[in-house]
Amino acid sequence: MSKDKRRGLIIVNTGNGKGKTTAALGTAFRAAGQGFNIMIIQFIKGSWKYGELEAAKKFDNLTITPMGKGFIKLGAAEPEAADCRLAEETWSACEQAILSGDYDLVVCDEVNYALSYKLLPVQRVIETLQKRPSYVHVILTGRDAPPEIVELADLVTEMREIKHPYQTGISAQRGIEF
Amino acid sequence: MSKDKRRGLIIVNTGNGKGKTTAALGTAFRAAGQGFNIMIIQFIKGSWKYGELEAAKKFDNLTITPMGKGFIKLGAAEPEAADCRLAEETWSACEQAILSGDYDLVVCDEVNYALSYKLLPVQRVIETLQKRPSYVHVILTGRDAPPEIVELADLVTEMREIKHPYQTGISAQRGIEF
Repeated sequence: MSKDKRRGLIIVNTGNGKGKTTAALGTAFRAAGQGFNIMIIQFIKGSWKYGELEAAKKFDNLTITPMGKGFIKLGAAEPEAADCRLAEETWSACEQAILSGDYDLVVCDEVNYALSYKLLPVQRVIETLQKRPSYVHVILTGRDAPPEIVELADLVTEMREIKHPYQTGISAQRGIEF
Repeated sequence: MSKDKRRGLIIVNTGNGKGKTTAALGTAFRAAGQGFNIMIIQFIKGSWKYGELEAAKKFDNLTITPMGKGFIKLGAAEPEAADCRLAEETWSACEQAILSGDYDLVVCDEVNYALSYKLLPVQRVIETLQKRPSYVHVILTGRDAPPEIVELADLVTEMREIKHPYQTGISAQRGIEF
């Protein structure tokens, strides 16, 4: 199928469980195996770990752009201006990748996090998605996806935590969680 | 950390949504990037598609063993003997990989499907998991994970379908769903 006949999907991986970023990673590798050009942009520095960064090096058609910074301080009444600026810059990079037409798949990793903490106006994201080339697939990950994003999306999955190792005192395991 | 000090996790990806196998795929690539030896055994032929099979070829330390057959006829009062035999053979291959100690991670893809359709006794799976070398991680995917498996697992995530493209008449997209 030619690019132009393809129907680009908006895919949302949300919820409080594991697997939102990991499933996006799986989709990115699958798409890489199909010869797609893929751009992954990270809103939270460090959200992609050593294992996947090493694995990604095997693919010329998969680029990871770490932006953002570590997890910001939560629970502040108002988001800090510096955090908002960083989130806007990161979205600008997403927007450029999405609108360029150079990529078949753009992963905006943890963007829902930036949206739910009001670091970024949801309308800005919606406008970019609506004016993208029709063949561009976009994956938006992160907990608390705003309802406007869910409304616009084609495929939405909630990853729900049923049981987590921290509940039994097991620390994060190399190769599995990073 | 040496193998023997590692705490192997039992990870379950279940639920009616997308991303169960895809997240296992993501974890497998992450683990491959960390230099783990990984065996993926498929209970349902064709559940892993062209994209990921091509991507997997880039890694010497990741082996995919397709077993089983296509989706069996559902809703029969009793599982057919041939289906049970095939499921038992597939579990034997999982068991061998898990108990051999040669693999850091074994993915038993769609095993929950075989369990929930009673093609395979859950006790057999539990016994293998319990006697595995302590450093071996195992991922069990598929909807309707039995309660005994959830009970034994360290990490359980339910992938819930919130919205799916078939609801709006969009067909499966190359590079994303296969």
